[in-house]
Amino acid sequence: MRAVTLFVLPGIGEITPGTDVAAVILAAAGSAPDAALQPGDILAVTSKIVSKAEGRQVLAADREQAITDETVRVVASRKHAGGVTRIVENKLGIVAAAAGVDNSNTPADTVLLLPVDPDASARALCARLRRELGFDVGVIITDTLGRAWREGQTDAAIGAAGIEVLTDLRGTPDSFGQEMRATMTAVADEIAAAADLVKGKTSQCPVAVLRGLPELVLPGGTGAEPVPGRAERAEPVPGRADAGARSLIRPAAQDLFRQGSAEAWRDGYAAACRDAGLPVPVFQEDEPS
Amino acid sequence: MRAVTLFVLPGIGEITPGTDVAAVILAAAGSAPDAALQPGDILAVTSKIVSKAEGRQVLAADREQAITDETVRVVASRKHAGGVTRIVENKLGIVAAAAGVDNSNTPADTVLLLPVDPDASARALCARLRRELGFDVGVIITDTLGRAWREGQTDAAIGAAGIEVLTDLRGTPDSFGQEMRATMTAVADEIAAAADLVKGKTSQCPVAVLRGLPELVLPGGTGAEPVPGRAERAEPVPGRADAGARSLIRPAAQDLFRQGSAEAWRDGYAAACRDAGLPVPVFQEDEPS
Repeated sequence: MRAVTLFVLPGIGEITPGTDVAAVILAAAGSAPDAALQPGDILAVTSKIVSKAEGRQVLAADREQAITDETVRVVASRKHAGGVTRIVENKLGIVAAAAGVDNSNTPADTVLLLPVDPDASARALCARLRRELGFDVGVIITDTLGRAWREGQTDAAIGAAGIEVLTDLRGTPDSFGQEMRATMTAVADEIAAAADLVKGKTSQCPVAVLRGLPELVLPGGTGAEPVPGRAERAEPVPGRADAGARSLIRPAAQDLFRQGSAEAWRDGYAAACRDAGLPVPVFQEDEPS
Repeated sequence: MRAVTLFVLPGIGEITPGTDVAAVILAAAGSAPDAALQPGDILAVTSKIVSKAEGRQVLAADREQAITDETVRVVASRKHAGGVTRIVENKLGIVAAAAGVDNSNTPADTVLLLPVDPDASARALCARLRRELGFDVGVIITDTLGRAWREGQTDAAIGAAGIEVLTDLRGTPDSFGQEMRATMTAVADEIAAAADLVKGKTSQCPVAVLRGLPELVLPGGTGAEPVPGRAERAEPVPGRADAGARSLIRPAAQDLFRQGSAEAWRDGYAAACRDAGLPVPVFQEDEPS
């Protein structure tokens, strides 16, 4: 019977700049028999601890400036009673509220920026874990993201290494023999979401282990024995193998929601004014469109 | 150690109009000792089998018409080599490609519409399962949805009963004693995503069981003993308890992406033309904006 288990690694305390996250994870996994890692495990690591270890904490006096600094492009913004929500594309290409700048679970007067390159952080962590464990595991680095159209947030993968992040079923016959269209599953995001269910947000459980999907773990040249179940896996999509979480970001040319509706409406209005040789009105940020 | 297990119920075959889905689930859960349901389990049921049981299969000759019929509002559309992708709000308020009309894993010449009211389907299934099992379980009905900004699809909850779908952490102190802002986790969507990891898309495993989050299962008046772990759960958000998956849909007033960027741009352009007393140009659907 196909089954997947998720558990959190016990006893991971506060992470500070310079903490060796791989060593902390290995110590936690070694601290209890039922926490021991196995070939084919996938570790979901909260970006917060990676950021802290990488010294990405900055003074909170600069919070708005920190958001601005991390912003490549404003997608949408909306004033409300508590201030302004800015949904922006950050330096990683990720569309997120506040550019991923975080001030929960950090000491007062500080905020935490995302890792500079979460795929690189994941690759380094994955390589180190594989080397020390002697078998293949996968790593994702997770962050909490809002969604268009749906309430609430879910965790998603912002970094990944050693795993297939998108499982491409296009061209695979379905159970009626018809070719399945447009089915590309963002498995790394599904793993991040699943991991959040066990990690929670406040319980200081920043690392979850997912066991039971070894077919997603890519071979790694550790010289170790093959992961059981690996032989059954579908061929990775050419060019997708170990492409990292960056490959989960939709390219601009395919992005139908590059701007918020209000922002795009205003741009269209302004373009018509310019085309007609008319003055372009100054829009209030919250003007309904 | 906090852990969650997911497994698929074995031996669920083809579902046809009129199939008693609750009976099929109970039979599958009774078919093997390790498939037996327990108090606090959450069942993730693929919408496809609910639709089939509810007779929502229609002739494929009507596919485009079926999409149009299910569409309340076109959010964005884009022509491409294979036709037109239409992202629309459907009758359920869900924003989805092709209005959720599905032609994979269905017999040739047919398509499958979503259940008429997936929350109602989930409530009926949940009540029946609780009654026959004598303890509380939760039910979600899942569908595969695309996302803005991110590649690939993930499963989400389009119906839910007997579980809290949004866990509201706003106002909860974080581990540094600061109030957490803007943290409302769409746990039902995270459960749907996790369930997809074990269900897969082609393997005829339409029902997954998630075990280990009894705190999300709402008490149900089955007269049965309380679910273990229930006492530890946070209070449900007033008005949210058993609010169903409908409460995961962002209200229009808070939706910053009510239209695709190109569509909103054209509307803004047209509005400026009207305001200036100029003729409104006719836009080609794919005109870059």
